[in-house]
Amino acid sequence: MTEETPVKTELCERFGIEVPIFGFSHAVEVVAAVSNAGGYGVYGATRRLAGEITDEVAQIRAAVGDRPFGLDLVIPNKVPERNDRAELEAMVPDQHRSFVAGIGARYAVPAPSQPGMRTRFIRSEEIQDAQIAAVAASDVNMVALGIGCPPEVVAAMKAKGKTTVALVGQEKHAARALEAGVDMLVAQGYDAGGHTGEVGTFSLVPRIVDLAGDVPVLAAGGVATGRHIAAALTLGAQGVWIGTAFLMTEEYAPHLSPGELEALLHAQTTDTVISRAESGKPFRQTRSAWSDEWAAPGAPKPLSHPLHDVLVGDILGAIIEHDIRPLQHYGAGQGIGWFDRLRPVAEVVATLVREGDAALDRAGRQRETAA
Amino acid sequence: MTEETPVKTELCERFGIEVPIFGFSHAVEVVAAVSNAGGYGVYGATRRLAGEITDEVAQIRAAVGDRPFGLDLVIPNKVPERNDRAELEAMVPDQHRSFVAGIGARYAVPAPSQPGMRTRFIRSEEIQDAQIAAVAASDVNMVALGIGCPPEVVAAMKAKGKTTVALVGQEKHAARALEAGVDMLVAQGYDAGGHTGEVGTFSLVPRIVDLAGDVPVLAAGGVATGRHIAAALTLGAQGVWIGTAFLMTEEYAPHLSPGELEALLHAQTTDTVISRAESGKPFRQTRSAWSDEWAAPGAPKPLSHPLHDVLVGDILGAIIEHDIRPLQHYGAGQGIGWFDRLRPVAEVVATLVREGDAALDRAGRQRETAA
Repeated sequence: MTEETPVKTELCERFGIEVPIFGFSHAVEVVAAVSNAGGYGVYGATRRLAGEITDEVAQIRAAVGDRPFGLDLVIPNKVPERNDRAELEAMVPDQHRSFVAGIGARYAVPAPSQPGMRTRFIRSEEIQDAQIAAVAASDVNMVALGIGCPPEVVAAMKAKGKTTVALVGQEKHAARALEAGVDMLVAQGYDAGGHTGEVGTFSLVPRIVDLAGDVPVLAAGGVATGRHIAAALTLGAQGVWIGTAFLMTEEYAPHLSPGELEALLHAQTTDTVISRAESGKPFRQTRSAWSDEWAAPGAPKPLSHPLHDVLVGDILGAIIEHDIRPLQHYGAGQGIGWFDRLRPVAEVVATLVREGDAALDRAGRQRETAA
Repeated sequence: MTEETPVKTELCERFGIEVPIFGFSHAVEVVAAVSNAGGYGVYGATRRLAGEITDEVAQIRAAVGDRPFGLDLVIPNKVPERNDRAELEAMVPDQHRSFVAGIGARYAVPAPSQPGMRTRFIRSEEIQDAQIAAVAASDVNMVALGIGCPPEVVAAMKAKGKTTVALVGQEKHAARALEAGVDMLVAQGYDAGGHTGEVGTFSLVPRIVDLAGDVPVLAAGGVATGRHIAAALTLGAQGVWIGTAFLMTEEYAPHLSPGELEALLHAQTTDTVISRAESGKPFRQTRSAWSDEWAAPGAPKPLSHPLHDVLVGDILGAIIEHDIRPLQHYGAGQGIGWFDRLRPVAEVVATLVREGDAALDRAGRQRETAA
């Protein structure tokens, strides 16, 4: 990374990074590698318990030294005070249980060796409060809120000197986050992997930029090449937020099952689908027999979250454990078509910057030719 | 329009236009105004009979003089040889008829004064061949194919000296169009109004650019501001294709019912929805009681095209004729949120160019600051 790369924006100085690339990952190794490559790693900690968060933040800190990194949580509006699994289990309709059992039988999915493992906790105020306390007490530099943006959490994190960020998929979510006082917005479009909204990235980004005023905005959803970075800056963003590209890395691969890795490596641009069959909420993933079965005529509608988690947790765990290929899938965005091999995180970042610089150079030359 | 505008690309010289803005419209006045403003007007002629096409092309020619303009047709793969309305009517299931009658009753929709008017023709080889012959014999400069891209039609149009263009929403459609020998591709993303695909504009454009090699690509779907034009060029496109912005013009407004105009003026970024309830094919439109009723639990699935047209043609016509507001809607893309008043077409084009130039200037300055 040179100091003089054209993709560098004001954001870089403000946050002490070299390039305005934020890399989201569920793997501490990837988060550390993004920060060490001059970007800003963000650890997806939503499914981690408070004690795990404390340990993992310490691991990342040890790997990155003084470089900044962040952590992503979701804080939905309504969660039960406590997590009563038996009560939730009782609410699952028989029709849904037998549909899932039918999928298990058709694809010969054995039982998981550790039932309940994948849904070892169901979100509750109790668990959420402990997560928030662990994050506040840690020395993580930034907290990103993937869903929900309670003003008191934003205030508490700011009081601890942490940068606060909200992911938004609609203007009304952005308005709420700005009111809560966040330091930055991530405009995440329909093109994104995982939980995502309905407004295309191209359409969403400049709307959020205009609403945000002086608050900087990152573009998310489909950012896969340096041209996308240059386009995001042209749309008014000050940087990009990337998930999918960092799945296809040497550092992330050990966290994938062979079937998940295969699904991601082979997926083309048109091979992802938004389905509620993963969690009960719209979730973009590689298309598989799992999403197809739930979209077939006669299939029941997925349950609401977190009830759907309780319904499908064990079979989803077993599909991975027993390597049932046709049903394996992974959360990924429409940028997945650009990636068909594993590279080190540092190489992914360097390539994005090189391509982004070249695209901005072309735009600059176009202006000069015209002038 | 100056000669020196930064948004000007190679395409402009090649096609004899001043700015790389292609404006699609169902109104001859808008098409003429776009060409007269230095862009490239394209007339949506799919629902026009051969004789009408001949007349309307002559009208546009009279208005634009030597300036180029185009015409858009759809040529789906499989259409019946002849249009037997009675046969199609007999295929409509009773369940669908009674569902549509139920909507009519709930919203007190009177019968249309001219039954069958809105579906006065149902696509057949006979009608399609006559349309193609009329276009080939006309002096329109460009033919754009919105759906389907038969090599023999491309060859016939090229033999007449016409530029040929294909709209594509996926890489496989682009590959077929390139094989058919088209002169240009329009990469139309999910963000677009009307019949559209599933890949977000941001994700689609650079994929198609890479596939197209030397064949120029326009970006379509969500292009609403000059920043979008600058971003499209940064993604590798040579220009943009715009529909929605030209709906909100003084020239187009007389073609809208009061209810349609109201729906378009009030729609925000999140107020469009993709529904098969319009034509049987996925069609992005302003959300209304019409799309909501078809998405409600218990509603039948829309029929396939053109059967769905036969089913809903009369009620859709009556909804407009009798100004049934809650059911009125119009095809529009996710850019609709940018438009809340009517302007002349020339002003829309000039604003897009001015903003696009400014956005490219900013990108150019960014490069210089870094260098």
